[in-house]
Amino acid sequence: MINTPSSWFDERFQNASSIGYRINKRLHHSVSPYQTVEIYETADFGNLLVLDGAIMLTEAHEFLYHELLVHIPLLSHPKPETILVVGGGDGGTVREVLLHDTVRRVDMVEIDEEVVKVSRLFLPGLANKLDDPKVNLVIQDAVEFVQGLDQVYDVVLVDSTDPIGPGEGLFSRAFYTEVKKALKPGGLVAVQSESPFSLQKEPATILEKMRSIFPLAKLYWGPIPCYPFGAWSFAFCAKDGHEPVVRRPEAAKTIEGSARYYNRDIHIAAFVLPNFMRSF
Amino acid sequence: MINTPSSWFDERFQNASSIGYRINKRLHHSVSPYQTVEIYETADFGNLLVLDGAIMLTEAHEFLYHELLVHIPLLSHPKPETILVVGGGDGGTVREVLLHDTVRRVDMVEIDEEVVKVSRLFLPGLANKLDDPKVNLVIQDAVEFVQGLDQVYDVVLVDSTDPIGPGEGLFSRAFYTEVKKALKPGGLVAVQSESPFSLQKEPATILEKMRSIFPLAKLYWGPIPCYPFGAWSFAFCAKDGHEPVVRRPEAAKTIEGSARYYNRDIHIAAFVLPNFMRSF
Repeated sequence: MINTPSSWFDERFQNASSIGYRINKRLHHSVSPYQTVEIYETADFGNLLVLDGAIMLTEAHEFLYHELLVHIPLLSHPKPETILVVGGGDGGTVREVLLHDTVRRVDMVEIDEEVVKVSRLFLPGLANKLDDPKVNLVIQDAVEFVQGLDQVYDVVLVDSTDPIGPGEGLFSRAFYTEVKKALKPGGLVAVQSESPFSLQKEPATILEKMRSIFPLAKLYWGPIPCYPFGAWSFAFCAKDGHEPVVRRPEAAKTIEGSARYYNRDIHIAAFVLPNFMRSF
Repeated sequence: MINTPSSWFDERFQNASSIGYRINKRLHHSVSPYQTVEIYETADFGNLLVLDGAIMLTEAHEFLYHELLVHIPLLSHPKPETILVVGGGDGGTVREVLLHDTVRRVDMVEIDEEVVKVSRLFLPGLANKLDDPKVNLVIQDAVEFVQGLDQVYDVVLVDSTDPIGPGEGLFSRAFYTEVKKALKPGGLVAVQSESPFSLQKEPATILEKMRSIFPLAKLYWGPIPCYPFGAWSFAFCAKDGHEPVVRRPEAAKTIEGSARYYNRDIHIAAFVLPNFMRSF
């Protein structure tokens, strides 16, 4: 919503808490077959992507989410060559994946072409790697896309919206059962798994589901100022039970050299859970 | 501000970003000689303390701030007996300090008696340890209180408001020079040092100041959903350069047993800084 004369975009999360930004103007509004897509220019944090009223990212802070989602699983894999990105229409996840020089192919499966179009226009710093020759962009529901795939990917990154709306199927047991089959031996998955402070405790629910499918599933977390409660969790899952340790120290050193959040100490610390999360 | 009919309290931080809660009603409003003091009942996160329009705490999440501010320095000290709490009128810091059975005396120096009065009424879960016989509550400006003190305290905890308004003097070089003198040999300090995501980079400024006074000063951090950007930093300072490691493992194990945030792994991980904070 926009309040005038002083304009703010406030996300009222679950009618309980809110996070907002002062905005200069709304740059874009459209309604796709899946959701409303909006871009606002904030006063201080760059452009803001909003889907169905929920803040997805600000240009100022998107590095936190994308570095956490991508570098932890990719550097925990000994040789990530083929990657599946589920969702991630803004392009930020693909951008970080392409920093890893082992990667030969990235299949990005986004259900909503409108998000990609709008991101190319208003979030070029995220979307400008979507034309890389290694990237195969598929506009399709990932739930269908993964059906029947057998040992195709080294790493699957699930960069979805919340478990309501178009992202709902991406939190189902059926989907992750297919994702597991689609992984090569030693394959890894990282999934955005909602806020540790959410009243609904989605991270606990997601972790429990993952543990029933994968021999190893662990939560990690970091600060994301534009998401509800300002902290966010991710579920790391390993097809063959491999721990989320740095498997390519030289590559990690290189990534660390240009990253704004990730470093090898953070790789370990991100898995250190406060007591209230240990009980998840 | 209160918007009707759906009522929210939104803190508009530096006219750039906002955090808010849906509220049932305002329980208290007064104007002390130092600031406006308000209590709101939120719909989902307990009572909310607001000073001069800035959110200080919610009952649901205050444990994060208080455990981080208190347990890390107290468990890094071999035998913390005498403690100075600067500010902290809500009582949460004192409550956590008293969990440490080495502690014999806590001087709490709060400039604004109104905050203490209001907290006793509306935040009993925080303020109810202020009557403990070990606690010496002093209503005074801590800048005056520390003048001329010589080797009195094992640990000083600075639980202040922001560096504007009544808390301003608590960020001055003169104050920390006196605090250092007031520490016994081996003494430690922890100071709330603002958000790592603040556009003004206060943590960097505070750290630089501390490093010019103490032989060791390091930032640590954690998630605080009700503070701007949802993440907060603290400066750990050591009069004689001692590192912030657990010096009393048995006590740490006991604290960990009842804490909701703190554990011995978090004690280490809280000092692991993302790249953008390493450059502070």
